[in-house]
Amino acid sequence: MTAVRGTNLRDMSRVLANGDATSSEFIAHSLALAEATNSWLKSLITVTSERGWEQAAAADDRRRRGASLGLLDGVPYVAKDAFNTAGIRTTAGSRVFAEHYPTEDSVVVRKLADAGAVLIGKANMHEFAYGATGENQFSGTTVNPWDRSRLAGGSSGGSAAAVAAGIVPFALGTDTGGSVRVPAALCGVTGFKPSFGLLDSTGVIPFCWTLDHVGIIAASADDVSIVTGWLTDLDTFSPVECARSLRVGVLPDAALVLQPSVRAGYESAVAALRGLGARFHEIKLPDAAESRAVSLTIQLAEALAYHSPLIDTCGEKYGADIRSGFVLGQQLSAESYVQCQRLLTEYRSSFSRQLDNVDVILTPTCPIVAPEIGSTRVPIGEQLCPVGNALTLYTSFFNLVGAPAVALPSGQDDRGLPVSVQLVGAAGADKWVLQLARHLEKDLAQV
Amino acid sequence: MTAVRGTNLRDMSRVLANGDATSSEFIAHSLALAEATNSWLKSLITVTSERGWEQAAAADDRRRRGASLGLLDGVPYVAKDAFNTAGIRTTAGSRVFAEHYPTEDSVVVRKLADAGAVLIGKANMHEFAYGATGENQFSGTTVNPWDRSRLAGGSSGGSAAAVAAGIVPFALGTDTGGSVRVPAALCGVTGFKPSFGLLDSTGVIPFCWTLDHVGIIAASADDVSIVTGWLTDLDTFSPVECARSLRVGVLPDAALVLQPSVRAGYESAVAALRGLGARFHEIKLPDAAESRAVSLTIQLAEALAYHSPLIDTCGEKYGADIRSGFVLGQQLSAESYVQCQRLLTEYRSSFSRQLDNVDVILTPTCPIVAPEIGSTRVPIGEQLCPVGNALTLYTSFFNLVGAPAVALPSGQDDRGLPVSVQLVGAAGADKWVLQLARHLEKDLAQV
Repeated sequence: MTAVRGTNLRDMSRVLANGDATSSEFIAHSLALAEATNSWLKSLITVTSERGWEQAAAADDRRRRGASLGLLDGVPYVAKDAFNTAGIRTTAGSRVFAEHYPTEDSVVVRKLADAGAVLIGKANMHEFAYGATGENQFSGTTVNPWDRSRLAGGSSGGSAAAVAAGIVPFALGTDTGGSVRVPAALCGVTGFKPSFGLLDSTGVIPFCWTLDHVGIIAASADDVSIVTGWLTDLDTFSPVECARSLRVGVLPDAALVLQPSVRAGYESAVAALRGLGARFHEIKLPDAAESRAVSLTIQLAEALAYHSPLIDTCGEKYGADIRSGFVLGQQLSAESYVQCQRLLTEYRSSFSRQLDNVDVILTPTCPIVAPEIGSTRVPIGEQLCPVGNALTLYTSFFNLVGAPAVALPSGQDDRGLPVSVQLVGAAGADKWVLQLARHLEKDLAQV
Repeated sequence: MTAVRGTNLRDMSRVLANGDATSSEFIAHSLALAEATNSWLKSLITVTSERGWEQAAAADDRRRRGASLGLLDGVPYVAKDAFNTAGIRTTAGSRVFAEHYPTEDSVVVRKLADAGAVLIGKANMHEFAYGATGENQFSGTTVNPWDRSRLAGGSSGGSAAAVAAGIVPFALGTDTGGSVRVPAALCGVTGFKPSFGLLDSTGVIPFCWTLDHVGIIAASADDVSIVTGWLTDLDTFSPVECARSLRVGVLPDAALVLQPSVRAGYESAVAALRGLGARFHEIKLPDAAESRAVSLTIQLAEALAYHSPLIDTCGEKYGADIRSGFVLGQQLSAESYVQCQRLLTEYRSSFSRQLDNVDVILTPTCPIVAPEIGSTRVPIGEQLCPVGNALTLYTSFFNLVGAPAVALPSGQDDRGLPVSVQLVGAAGADKWVLQLARHLEKDLAQV
């Protein structure tokens, strides 16, 4: 029996093709590890053994008949519990949906089923994706596989933790302000938020239509590229040529208020890109406080519009933090929402102009390593900053502009806690960003 | 000197080509008629003689050199005063913009200049397009050329009146809930609101980004098609084939609460379409009160977002009706705006499904003929309805779904007041709707 842990999609596929293991054996391992870790890791809200066994048996049957569907056929994965799954409870991490059994799969889950991938669980998450810490009074808080006293991050914390713990090689998440990239960073795995709309969000319980992105978490950029390729029409491995030497946009040093280990990881990435021949150019993003307010206004107004009928009927079932968000949201005027939508339009055009001058942007993913569970504020430079705001400091702007962004592991601190960098491209340049991420991860692995 | 009145674009072009008249002579006639009528008709806020003479001289020069630009070269037109014009005062019908001299032409005005069309005036309008009656305390109220005691309608009332009075063969307007089609209907000319976004609204002072459409008013569907063809990539005269006999969607009879002359005009159109082999199918649109509330919410929130900085600095310059709209707008929550935007998405998909079963929709344009100036409520069936709501009863829904819609003259009442019908197609089916309108107008002319 080949362990899933540490293997990648290509290796797993080879093992299956050689007959060294069956999909059912992979799934048995995944399910056993899921069950064994779930009491403390809390990466899954629901273990979908029944569907897992069925899909694995079907994959094994196809393989025996020489009718394998390809690289993902028979491979286990988990989906954040915001993805509807037919007949399988889909809670969005909330007591409100404790008895929610959708009748249809979300589009992306269906596509993965069509590719033969085997769903073995519904991953834990921040309630209704409203937060970057992953703390949850209903489903429990996913802990960090590298240190159980620390957060896995959120909102797709269960997805990142399940990949980091070796339960599955990849996972589905959603990202509205960093919810795929932040937990990927804190857990030391790769998280990809594609361009807005590249992955279909039909059948995903929304947080905020304007900013929600379906994303992928895996152990490597190579694996993320493989899954993206299966879910889209993108030929993610056909090379994109860069006519001249690589131009990398970076934030001014004053904007990089980082823990020392995060800075070291960031500088490794700078060095690795320099090794690839890159030249660095300073870029300018809008004032972070302003863009955070824009993001929050749009999030709260749209979340409230979705939840309003539920609040009327079962408002007491919501957790405290999302309820306080609703109270804030009720204060927002239509005018301010429209103003924020107009600012988005400006952000998109000015961001697109920045990307005329650079090929990619490099930032840290989070300014800090995984914070301790229960911490509410962390020091960012000389300020004490709410944990959620700190974690999404470098990620949330790229949801406003719908740009593709990958969080890549770039080292560990001396306690072994992962640090991560983020590569961001122009909206639509998903292939290019993934290609560069694959190059960079090779070099970072050698650092 | 050939009179403009009653001539169409093809005739004018022929007269110019034959040398029977020059563009400067056309412009002299237009300017003279504009000046002579403006004291009572109030169709123009600004007569742009200087630009008119220059553009006409340039057109005549091109023609002498055998370098005519085509059908619109040397032809006079007016633009609603919401279209920015470089160096020419652009008031949007408001004291707030009494001294607003843009530095650039709006895109559509520039395209018309590129086609050789000659701008001779900026047309009167409801203040900031906020209303369908065209009543205006700042610039005066455009009266109906068929009866000076009655409204020309709005908000593009000056554009429709200038065409109806024979001052120009065509005019630019904008339409957010009926603002091109309603005045076209009341003035007995043709008004076209294309699919959302077909005509570029860059450089047009907005009322409401989500629902604003740039539109065209002319004496006939043929002329509207010519101008649309020049302003877009659409080959408006290449025929669209309809595979089977024409299927026309109509509203249930209970929804047609019409003045008798309007009903007669509507029935002429039914008869004419039947003559073209049409079969009729009942269609169902969302509840009119609901869709009106959706429209109003989006309008008021977006208008407020645009005007908010102006209200702070010169709020007292706004007219009473738009000010009361702002007060309403300030009560709207972000949540309700988002709910309305979500309803728009539903409206668009259900409308698109209706258009799977019919090729075109026929409705009256307005349920009433031009109301008397100063009337505030008019009877619609057994209800007294605010004039603006009555006028847009059949037009405003089609802004919500971004569908192309043409208002076509379909007769007159016994006082000579025009009545009109509306043809509506699926979003994007502009060519088809124009083609059908050209067929229908021939048959209606013979009724």
